Amino acid sequence: MHQDHFYTLSASCPDQVGIIARVTGFITGHGGWILESSFHADALDSRYFMRIEIKAASLPFGLDEFCRQFSPLANALQMDWRITDSARKKRVVVLVSQQEHCLYDLLARWQAQELNIDIACVISNHDTFRGFVEWHGIPFHHVPVTPENKPQAYAEVQRLFEAAQGDTMVLARYMQVLPSELCAAYSGRIINIHHSFLPSFVGAKPYHQAYTRGVKLIGATCHYVTADLDQGPIIEQDVIRIDHSDSVEDMVRYGKDIEKTVLARGLRFHLEDRVLVHGNKTVVFR
Amino acid sequence: MHQDHFYTLSASCPDQVGIIARVTGFITGHGGWILESSFHADALDSRYFMRIEIKAASLPFGLDEFCRQFSPLANALQMDWRITDSARKKRVVVLVSQQEHCLYDLLARWQAQELNIDIACVISNHDTFRGFVEWHGIPFHHVPVTPENKPQAYAEVQRLFEAAQGDTMVLARYMQVLPSELCAAYSGRIINIHHSFLPSFVGAKPYHQAYTRGVKLIGATCHYVTADLDQGPIIEQDVIRIDHSDSVEDMVRYGKDIEKTVLARGLRFHLEDRVLVHGNKTVVFR
Amino acid sequence: MHQDHFYTLSASCPDQVGIIARVTGFITGHGGWILESSFHADALDSRYFMRIEIKAASLPFGLDEFCRQFSPLANALQMDWRITDSARKKRVVVLVSQQEHCLYDLLARWQAQELNIDIACVISNHDTFRGFVEWHGIPFHHVPVTPENKPQAYAEVQRLFEAAQGDTMVLARYMQVLPSELCAAYSGRIINIHHSFLPSFVGAKPYHQAYTRGVKLIGATCHYVTADLDQGPIIEQDVIRIDHSDSVEDMVRYGKDIEKTVLARGLRFHLEDRVLVHGNKTVVFR
Amino acid sequence: MHQDHFYTLSASCPDQVGIIARVTGFITGHGGWILESSFHADALDSRYFMRIEIKAASLPFGLDEFCRQFSPLANALQMDWRITDSARKKRVVVLVSQQEHCLYDLLARWQAQELNIDIACVISNHDTFRGFVEWHGIPFHHVPVTPENKPQAYAEVQRLFEAAQGDTMVLARYMQVLPSELCAAYSGRIINIHHSFLPSFVGAKPYHQAYTRGVKLIGATCHYVTADLDQGPIIEQDVIRIDHSDSVEDMVRYGKDIEKTVLARGLRFHLEDRVLVHGNKTVVFR
Repeated sequence: MHQDHFYTLSASCPDQVGIIARVTGFITGHGGWILESSFHADALDSRYFMRIEIKAASLPFGLDEFCRQFSPLANALQMDWRITDSARKKRVVVLVSQQEHCLYDLLARWQAQELNIDIACVISNHDTFRGFVEWHGIPFHHVPVTPENKPQAYAEVQRLFEAAQGDTMVLARYMQVLPSELCAAYSGRIINIHHSFLPSFVGAKPYHQAYTRGVKLIGATCHYVTADLDQGPIIEQDVIRIDHSDSVEDMVRYGKDIEKTVLARGLRFHLEDRVLVHGNKTVVFR
Repeated sequence: MHQDHFYTLSASCPDQVGIIARVTGFITGHGGWILESSFHADALDSRYFMRIEIKAASLPFGLDEFCRQFSPLANALQMDWRITDSARKKRVVVLVSQQEHCLYDLLARWQAQELNIDIACVISNHDTFRGFVEWHGIPFHHVPVTPENKPQAYAEVQRLFEAAQGDTMVLARYMQVLPSELCAAYSGRIINIHHSFLPSFVGAKPYHQAYTRGVKLIGATCHYVTADLDQGPIIEQDVIRIDHSDSVEDMVRYGKDIEKTVLARGLRFHLEDRVLVHGNKTVVFR
Repeated sequence: MHQDHFYTLSASCPDQVGIIARVTGFITGHGGWILESSFHADALDSRYFMRIEIKAASLPFGLDEFCRQFSPLANALQMDWRITDSARKKRVVVLVSQQEHCLYDLLARWQAQELNIDIACVISNHDTFRGFVEWHGIPFHHVPVTPENKPQAYAEVQRLFEAAQGDTMVLARYMQVLPSELCAAYSGRIINIHHSFLPSFVGAKPYHQAYTRGVKLIGATCHYVTADLDQGPIIEQDVIRIDHSDSVEDMVRYGKDIEKTVLARGLRFHLEDRVLVHGNKTVVFR
Repeated sequence: MHQDHFYTLSASCPDQVGIIARVTGFITGHGGWILESSFHADALDSRYFMRIEIKAASLPFGLDEFCRQFSPLANALQMDWRITDSARKKRVVVLVSQQEHCLYDLLARWQAQELNIDIACVISNHDTFRGFVEWHGIPFHHVPVTPENKPQAYAEVQRLFEAAQGDTMVLARYMQVLPSELCAAYSGRIINIHHSFLPSFVGAKPYHQAYTRGVKLIGATCHYVTADLDQGPIIEQDVIRIDHSDSVEDMVRYGKDIEKTVLARGLRFHLEDRVLVHGNKTVVFR
């Protein structure tokens, strides 16, 4: 981690000889200073992944000109690519229900400037956290969801996300299933924390499922949301040890500590453009 | 851990007021010195579990007389109970196929007298490890298993286990499914190490399944074998972190380290009478 | 964990035959229902430790009468003992400086009623978190500390702690060294979170020390405060993996996640009377 | 991990613009296929580190010619560099005393061809493991060490290491302190496993030290041996949880599991040229 102003190029392309040399050659050819770089070749799929941080001040031009000049090479390599500017804070929209642990955790990190973000707004299907959120100077929107109003409710969520110019939507223990159109509209931009070590215990009440099965560790999974419930690409996971003396309530309590930590780590990887989606999996350059 | 000669009483019974007082009162009434004791009340099922180590020399009688005198109280409490003698080494029969990591690990622990056991014999469906096992002075039996000879093969395994006066059968990466009659005959006495974090990735090739799903941790599970494949009561589990750069082969290699450690821990808990089966779950008094 | 009204008896005494039987016999003799019980014999020091939760409604009398009737037995066993009532919330006073992670974390847990406490007040040597704390309806006291005013400042801290009827003082990344008289006055009641895996990296700037030494894991330690800096009895510790690419700033950031979790776990153990101090060590009944 | 024949270039040099481009440009210019690559810039010291795996068959020449042609660029960049050939198995010499866990573990991994090595010989100050080692077809040398014969004994160890054409010397719980001249002669080539989480508990009986301090986790450290006891660059570390009920003997037993795993991981990193020493620290490209 460093404090420089930098650009982050993340890309994937079919594997072939010379990708690193050509890409870093392009950057170096313009005097670009590479601060951090990661590369990965997926041997099975013959696909190449990379993430490169370039010191902005070392380049003779800005992001637009970089893109214009880099495009021919990117096209030649058949790249999927994006480049982001550390000077532009990403705008995060948080969706929450009635549990505070992830919300408090995210706001503490935001307060401490640990994440380079603006929290554009918080949306909830309950009014519980209005005061807390607004005290932080962050807009709060109460969008109740019922079986009857679901289409309208999520149209409103989408409208608020767009109005807030959101980059990333974070489901911070938001206890509703998003409609598949919304998932599709923001593919790779909606992050969820699921309270189990996926693929174990998909769906509702995973701690009850874990209790019944008698597992000795419980976990949490941060993943991109897709139309298939709890089936999206996994970004980060972790577990914590439990034993026979732990009730479901104990597991819920232990689980919160894992959930908020795993969500924060996964979200950081995403926001720093460290995650490249590859089919239903992820490459995560730490 | 201590070096005394001791008895281990492990028991469960319906919960009611006064169980500890009555059981420890009985022991104390005979001068019995309790070295270690653990108790657990399962609130949902109203069932009580305990494990008590008693210094042998502190009692005025031996195990038989203890049992005779303890029985009325055990009956009054409707107890399932057993008591074992640390002076009698348990006899372990190891089943193995062609992977060495768990076998080497168990033999190293046995050599170091880390476990209070005799390895009565090793049985394998391959002849690979005959020399290694026999070098340690342990009998080795090659019992090939084919689709055709399965009943006879497992009759032979059972005969060898009985002839060796086996207490516990350990499947140390034994790559065959035991017939359900054998599982039933030795319920709570056959321990398996499964190379996934159950209930994820039941059955064959769990590391391939894990690779395909893109999980960020892989694990291993030590459990009692029942007729339902990979569904028996879990004794111990653990996980290890992987990432996108790990191939299936890497995962297999990482997994071995977890498998042998989890098997050794679970086996130790079992051999020290720390595991009480409760339906399809376990109480493990560490 | 359960929701009953209960008493927690925690005690230690010289080891001898019959302690459990006598103590549980006393409880059972009054009809007392034991919800949870843990025992530990320290073989080296021949000292016995116990913790017993008793369902309040199962006893024919209240806490005062329990104490009166239990005293003769406690005296006969030369016990150090205490008994607490789950109906009486413990009063926690939090000391904080300018880092938010532990404060936010504790307030989130308090909001979620995860800990059975009142936060009596927050004291800080900075005014930074006044608004945040007061928004939660918790009194906030700004007590600046300078080299010149240290005695007066800590006299004020002590006065505030007493006025708030504090049970436990929590140093939630409070960046000042308490005077030894204060440590002595509240022995076993002041809990600190130190940002290293003690005994490594005592004192100031432990992450810098860890960076310089090139360790591969960093940690945090929750301990009782004594007059010797960072030398008090350890309650809980944990670690997190780092690597060569992590700067001191990265380590600080990773460390926060460990610090708040370890503090919360250690504090919970303390508040639930699960910690018995034994010389400069602790027995922690989970 | 892959099965190709490949070369591994590992290097460090003063940081400047264009290092990756020039090095990968050189490789690509000869048609070289990069299988895996890792880069790290140490911002504080302005030093650059890299590790690149090149598919051997993709180059038009062998290792000698590679070195000849690469030298001018390496010199221009003021590189410390080496390149190794996966076709040449490294020769490991294991030093051991009387504990079996690391020895069994290394031999199991060698048997399973998990490490691309030959075990050239085993040297011990006891004759305990002669039979076991020789059964594996590996030469065993008994070199007793006494206060009187220390210089001669280590002259013999050095002679045996040279005669065996050893690349790496592994102290697999070898309970003797090597003379500083030997440490200097094989700087960066002798690997030790220390049974504590360094820098805590340097020197003798670390588990006793850990017991006395009352820590809640114990650990192990794999490091390069230098003339300063337990002060060399750390390659890998890990920890395991213990509690008040664990005696020193329990900690020794738990510790073994960590020791062998940490040693195996650290050794693998070293053998695969993933470790670059940087002052008294290491860069480890996993």
